[in-house]
Amino acid sequence: MEKYLENLKNIIENKLNEYLPEIFPEEIWKAVRYSVLSEGKRLRPILVLEAFKICTGKFEEALPTACALEMIHCYSLIHDDLPCMDNDNFRRGKLTNHKVFGEGMAVLAGDALLSYAPQIILQKTPSNIPKETVFNVLNEFYNAIGPMGMLGGQVVDILSENKEIDIPTFEYIHTHKTGKLFEFALKSGAMLAGASEKKLNALSEYGKILGYAFQIADDILDEISTFEKLGKTPHKDAKAKKNTHTSIFGIENSKSELLILCDKAKTILKLENIESPLLCYIAQRLTDKVKGE
Amino acid sequence: MEKYLENLKNIIENKLNEYLPEIFPEEIWKAVRYSVLSEGKRLRPILVLEAFKICTGKFEEALPTACALEMIHCYSLIHDDLPCMDNDNFRRGKLTNHKVFGEGMAVLAGDALLSYAPQIILQKTPSNIPKETVFNVLNEFYNAIGPMGMLGGQVVDILSENKEIDIPTFEYIHTHKTGKLFEFALKSGAMLAGASEKKLNALSEYGKILGYAFQIADDILDEISTFEKLGKTPHKDAKAKKNTHTSIFGIENSKSELLILCDKAKTILKLENIESPLLCYIAQRLTDKVKGE
Repeated sequence: MEKYLENLKNIIENKLNEYLPEIFPEEIWKAVRYSVLSEGKRLRPILVLEAFKICTGKFEEALPTACALEMIHCYSLIHDDLPCMDNDNFRRGKLTNHKVFGEGMAVLAGDALLSYAPQIILQKTPSNIPKETVFNVLNEFYNAIGPMGMLGGQVVDILSENKEIDIPTFEYIHTHKTGKLFEFALKSGAMLAGASEKKLNALSEYGKILGYAFQIADDILDEISTFEKLGKTPHKDAKAKKNTHTSIFGIENSKSELLILCDKAKTILKLENIESPLLCYIAQRLTDKVKGE
Repeated sequence: MEKYLENLKNIIENKLNEYLPEIFPEEIWKAVRYSVLSEGKRLRPILVLEAFKICTGKFEEALPTACALEMIHCYSLIHDDLPCMDNDNFRRGKLTNHKVFGEGMAVLAGDALLSYAPQIILQKTPSNIPKETVFNVLNEFYNAIGPMGMLGGQVVDILSENKEIDIPTFEYIHTHKTGKLFEFALKSGAMLAGASEKKLNALSEYGKILGYAFQIADDILDEISTFEKLGKTPHKDAKAKKNTHTSIFGIENSKSELLILCDKAKTILKLENIESPLLCYIAQRLTDKVKGE
């Protein structure tokens, strides 16, 4: 399965490379390419492709949306890492964008990705996918990334630093900041494939739960892992007095919750008769990774 | 004519107010509304409406695109004013966004507008305008705002600070940083109206020229005007050793160039038999304003 994932990752990275030209003004494309093409798991775009493949048996036509989603993920990392936000120096084992290109260029690199990614969906989605569908995907895309989605989560996260927050607020942050892109990944793949409403809902629900599980795993790893394994500074959240799942519920409860969520994600697929060894594996791997630490 | 402009401005501002809700998380909408709803001439959205009106006799259906364009203009101002960019404390006579809401929230407010504006075009354009047309308008929108458009101009502008640049580079900055949104304003209005190619090209060309003229006027005023008249700190460009039209060509040459461009803009309309007292007035007012200083 890891080999299969590696193969998808290569396909996505080749496409990202193709979509991001090195044209004038080169400096902005260099900054964009530095972050987008640096080592990553490409989990979100892989989920787009898999949702599409579950419904159609192939994945190629979902590549533009998959790559656009990865670009949005990268834009959010570049802006989140800025000194006026999380102030991170390392990301994916490398210096963060503003550390290499300066803060101004990092703001612009994020803006460039945010302006460019939806255009990829609009321009590159093959014409055999109905325009109406592309419209709906774009609309979901905006919902997922904007102030009602990921960005809303980031806003509340920033406003909650150094404050005690209640559980609904905490859940809002993570279902939005991380969850919305995961949910969109599965939903957009299913939408592009013209999946039935039941299938679409099941896949979206899997995405939502996986996103939350992913965030919990991230919080656990931030507390117990090392720089080498994370590729970024560990224990940052505790230092920034961030509200994390582990700081609120305690590490053992976080681990149990993670197990429960990953099981739930797999059950949802089973109930809808969605056969996807890959989606089961991804949920399983998340729990295994934390156990392995 | 000023009364007519004032009326359009009010219609646009009411729509902007309607499009920008005050929902959770309120802090981001507050920051967004602070910048978008503060006093402005609303020139770009007025141009969208006028181009549409020239072709159809009405303007209502172009309002979503007009408002989206104004939101993009505001996003670019919020990010440009950041300390890591132009570092401005005042804008439209008020403290800049980051001075009121902090740098992190200002970055997010810009991002929110950039994620939200195209959704307005997608969702709010009335259904009697063909989906194919909305698609094409959205595509032009991304071309105008992204790394091949306005953002590209901003990148080269930032890279050129404290450097002597050649004239083609200077022209690239202004035709992109300012020009692309003006060009899009006229082009999108004409596209939404289903204008003939000749009319569309003439209006786009007017927009392009007006945008360049507008930037020259801005450079002249920055040099000769006062805080009270500008609503922002004057002489900033000179202090930042920015390359402006006046610093490169001298103020008298800039004034002549401005006159020539505004005449050219009006002539283009005349040649294509486009009757628009408003577009002629806007070009005329630009030269009058500089003369009046």
